[in-house]
Amino acid sequence: MADALRTLPDSTHPDLLVGFNKADDAGVYRITDRQALVQTVDFFPPIVDDPYHFGQIAAANAISDVYAMGGRPLTALNIVAFPSDKMPLQVLTEILRGGTDKINEAGATVLGGHSIKDNELKYGVAVTGLVDIDRIVTNAGARPNDKLFLTKPLGTGLITTGIKRLAVGPELEAIVSHQMAQLNKAAAELMVRFDVHAATDITGYGLLGHSFEIAEASNVTIRISSHAVPLMPQALELADAGMIPGGGVANREWLTDRIRVSDSVPHNLEVVMFDPQTSGGLLMAIPDERVADFQKEAELQKTYVWMVGQVETRGDFSLLID
Amino acid sequence: MADALRTLPDSTHPDLLVGFNKADDAGVYRITDRQALVQTVDFFPPIVDDPYHFGQIAAANAISDVYAMGGRPLTALNIVAFPSDKMPLQVLTEILRGGTDKINEAGATVLGGHSIKDNELKYGVAVTGLVDIDRIVTNAGARPNDKLFLTKPLGTGLITTGIKRLAVGPELEAIVSHQMAQLNKAAAELMVRFDVHAATDITGYGLLGHSFEIAEASNVTIRISSHAVPLMPQALELADAGMIPGGGVANREWLTDRIRVSDSVPHNLEVVMFDPQTSGGLLMAIPDERVADFQKEAELQKTYVWMVGQVETRGDFSLLID
Repeated sequence: MADALRTLPDSTHPDLLVGFNKADDAGVYRITDRQALVQTVDFFPPIVDDPYHFGQIAAANAISDVYAMGGRPLTALNIVAFPSDKMPLQVLTEILRGGTDKINEAGATVLGGHSIKDNELKYGVAVTGLVDIDRIVTNAGARPNDKLFLTKPLGTGLITTGIKRLAVGPELEAIVSHQMAQLNKAAAELMVRFDVHAATDITGYGLLGHSFEIAEASNVTIRISSHAVPLMPQALELADAGMIPGGGVANREWLTDRIRVSDSVPHNLEVVMFDPQTSGGLLMAIPDERVADFQKEAELQKTYVWMVGQVETRGDFSLLID
Repeated sequence: MADALRTLPDSTHPDLLVGFNKADDAGVYRITDRQALVQTVDFFPPIVDDPYHFGQIAAANAISDVYAMGGRPLTALNIVAFPSDKMPLQVLTEILRGGTDKINEAGATVLGGHSIKDNELKYGVAVTGLVDIDRIVTNAGARPNDKLFLTKPLGTGLITTGIKRLAVGPELEAIVSHQMAQLNKAAAELMVRFDVHAATDITGYGLLGHSFEIAEASNVTIRISSHAVPLMPQALELADAGMIPGGGVANREWLTDRIRVSDSVPHNLEVVMFDPQTSGGLLMAIPDERVADFQKEAELQKTYVWMVGQVETRGDFSLLID
């Protein structure tokens, strides 16, 4: 399906700076000599039970694409499919309240929206941000010696699958809800101050899929240190228990012949690195000479950043997992 | 449902110039001293059988909101729900081709999109345009003596209902498809050159609902001359045959005690005026002293405009139908 959208030829409009065929997080369109719009849209069925949390998560997830491109979120349009004959309207009100709170926390404003009656609930937003043209961050700029940082632990796909299968308790559901609702705002503001070479946010393709895309777009090899990858509580146990979403299976099928995973990497850890994330962290390539200052500043402002790998000159594989 | 979105409080952000609580066509957000973004989103299940035509219609319908505010369309994001297990992917490709062609015809560019698997096909777009702040057209500026012009004939709700109930032949389906796929571009460009006081595009609330909203927002009375209202072929016959969509019934219920319809107006004509339109025309309030030039220019550039009523000082009713 994503492929169907990507098979469309990119427009050749001269103001289109980043189109949708580059596997990037959002499209970028020049509106003045200095500024461009950054735009993205995402929506999906509930992945947690609480409607307010679901609204927050869906909004944070969509907004994250704007942050990943170095943009500042400005406006959002609500996208709603709601089974009004099966569900009290209060559920929708709570979802919209969660979305609006998160949009406002990002400094953006709800400008409108559209709702239709549907059999299955879905919610999401179309987000527009602004970015200075000389500060656009794409997935194509990683260079050898850059260090790769990740800003949220992995495992949301495994845990939300566990929630659906009633294998996860309320404490872990609260933890994963809180993490997915967290904006990548602070991490994004940090990243643009430290001359990031490339960035993306970790979503459906998991850490390995999105790392692969950065490596391909940048024509480099990325080496991931699996032991340094941050994990959510119980992620490994849920991997062992087979709580693997369909997207995780698809990610492995897509990449298994294209990347090299060391025999020393435990199977359950590999599963977590393939795990599709909702509202995952930013993955950014920071120039080696800026790393010490970057880490110091992150600690000062209490933004979590984990160094999970490094960039090397292009070898036989674009992605190596140690 | 629309009500659920509208019950949210409008943001108080100082750059929000037109929010979603004003029953206007799109939200408007200032980005510089002189310019603002105009944004809207719409999506729905197919209303005609041909997927390419459906894509064109859905895109033209959404883009129309930008035109109605005096904006110039810049970018669009595709919104897709597709039953990939029940329908060949070629159907989606055709829909996207239709949408993209129409977006490009409007001078805008597809910047991305999101698709999910769903039981029922839906397609639409989120559209962003630019408008000069001193040229924003809302539904709140109509003044006594303005003349009201409509740019497309009415009846798309009746005809598409007739298509669903197999009561409409292929010729009429072709005519209604063509009309709904038509952009309001030329009409919008004409309107901003002639100092329009207020405008909206005719969609779900029908001619009477949208006229009522202009009258309320502008604090005037609008008088519609029902005999001057342009009608699509067979619209009256389909009204007589009861091919009335749910939205048409809802529009009548909403307005019946709020407006005054003269006894001389035939029932089937009243039904057409309540008929919800997809990708309907623009309804605009043109200052009386500009009307002659406006009509002459419209004729020169072959843009259809029908004078369907006039604006009066506020009386007991905001809407009178003669």
